[in-house]
Amino acid sequence: MSAVLLHFDDEAPAAARLAQAAGLECAPIERHRFPDDELRLRLPARLPERVVVYRSLHRPNEKLLELLLVARTAGRLGAEHLTLVAPYLAYMRQDTAFHPGEAVSQRIVGEFLAGLFDGLVTVDPHLHRVATLGEVAPLAHAVALSGAPLLGGLAAARRRQPLLLGPDAESLQWVQAAAAAHGFDHGVCAKTRHGDREVDIALPEGLAVAGRAVVLLDDVASSGHTLARAAAVLRTAGAASVDVAVTHALFADDALELIRAAGVEQVWSTDCIAHPTNAVGVAPMLADALRTIGVA
Amino acid sequence: MSAVLLHFDDEAPAAARLAQAAGLECAPIERHRFPDDELRLRLPARLPERVVVYRSLHRPNEKLLELLLVARTAGRLGAEHLTLVAPYLAYMRQDTAFHPGEAVSQRIVGEFLAGLFDGLVTVDPHLHRVATLGEVAPLAHAVALSGAPLLGGLAAARRRQPLLLGPDAESLQWVQAAAAAHGFDHGVCAKTRHGDREVDIALPEGLAVAGRAVVLLDDVASSGHTLARAAAVLRTAGAASVDVAVTHALFADDALELIRAAGVEQVWSTDCIAHPTNAVGVAPMLADALRTIGVA
Repeated sequence: MSAVLLHFDDEAPAAARLAQAAGLECAPIERHRFPDDELRLRLPARLPERVVVYRSLHRPNEKLLELLLVARTAGRLGAEHLTLVAPYLAYMRQDTAFHPGEAVSQRIVGEFLAGLFDGLVTVDPHLHRVATLGEVAPLAHAVALSGAPLLGGLAAARRRQPLLLGPDAESLQWVQAAAAAHGFDHGVCAKTRHGDREVDIALPEGLAVAGRAVVLLDDVASSGHTLARAAAVLRTAGAASVDVAVTHALFADDALELIRAAGVEQVWSTDCIAHPTNAVGVAPMLADALRTIGVA
Repeated sequence: MSAVLLHFDDEAPAAARLAQAAGLECAPIERHRFPDDELRLRLPARLPERVVVYRSLHRPNEKLLELLLVARTAGRLGAEHLTLVAPYLAYMRQDTAFHPGEAVSQRIVGEFLAGLFDGLVTVDPHLHRVATLGEVAPLAHAVALSGAPLLGGLAAARRRQPLLLGPDAESLQWVQAAAAAHGFDHGVCAKTRHGDREVDIALPEGLAVAGRAVVLLDDVASSGHTLARAAAVLRTAGAASVDVAVTHALFADDALELIRAAGVEQVWSTDCIAHPTNAVGVAPMLADALRTIGVA
């Protein structure tokens, strides 16, 4: 019996695309919510030795508890090798105690997942102060892919000689990866944060933006305030057009409206998180990773 | 440095009552919710060797993830012995796979908590097919207290010679515990469940209810459908009055309205879950348990 890919109802389309690309059988995890909010999960009654669980971890808290229930139950039902495909991996930004006493959630969640799964495949985890995913989630196979080359290809197809800009220093790794294949001009802005929703943006020095088709590129768009502020600054500086390309379309609350109101023309994302802005699919890349670690 | 009791903002009053009864210092866990729903938790920067975490686990999913963050962080900050006081313990009703492939959440959550804490103190966990809390949560100190004697005392103070009835066979343990100290007449109904919200109730044979002050007693009121149906049947059978006494006031959605509409006069609960129906406090009992296991 070959490996099976388990998924929740709300991600059936993305899971089906991955299952097809990887040549895996797909099976749903049934979920019932009781009036008191407790969840009853039901997996296929018999599982093969190798099981892949598909779960993108935006709005992660309840999903992490579900993964505990799924992983432990899969083990009881015959699975011996469990791989989590989490195109979006949560809690990766809290990688240090910024104030004494703070939970370093990145390490805690990484070790939690490492205790449940043998393999982890994700896309553009927000690794800033650590070098590898394996340091965060110490499991046998920890694979961090990047959506940046896909977004770079999209920028090349949609705009003439685009200028790729990251909104802050942390985005440099993704901007470089996206620019590399096409030799795009690129750089990163300097960001000063004054709270969850207030930021200042300074354009990179020595890089003319006037008259350029600028593509703002980042790993994730959450509140949208950083991208909106960057777009406004670019418009004022005379950019011919501003588009946004992100791997992870979190877009909390009114983030997308905010970004568009700042003068952004197109917003593109990968389908790591299902969203109307999805413009490029990661299933082939995820399938390759599953083949590399011997699961597909 | 003596033990400290950590709590979340929304349970500050209950935590303060326990801290006072147990002679512990109280400290809040600061919580910030980011726009993408990730949580940032902050504990006191330095912790003593023994730490008690107060968290009643109704609407449990996110709270269980928080306990993971709290327990791991407390360990990093100097705590060597962690006790969880969870007056209400979640996921105790899913104690077997009712259908093939179902997650046996009771065991999984119990083992998860046992991996985080050294001690667990709770009240009336719903143990039906297992004998002890220690089987479910295999940690050094697992203490299951009962609110039933407190509710029995309340019934004795408020009603003359009450008849104590449980709505189903599973409630027998609590009805017996509540009736014992006062020699109350008591029994349990027979329940047939047709879904989360539809139940049939048959009164116990050989126990006259006409003219009696009946107190319906159970460990938990969730959807309220069982208690409402039992109250309606008792009213039809001529009970002089019907009151409800429960340890855990979950009361999902319109449960309380439903129970009152069925002819119930008074609804009493312990303060295991903070609720307007709280009529008796468990802090002294919890404090005794903490002293017994050497934490207070």
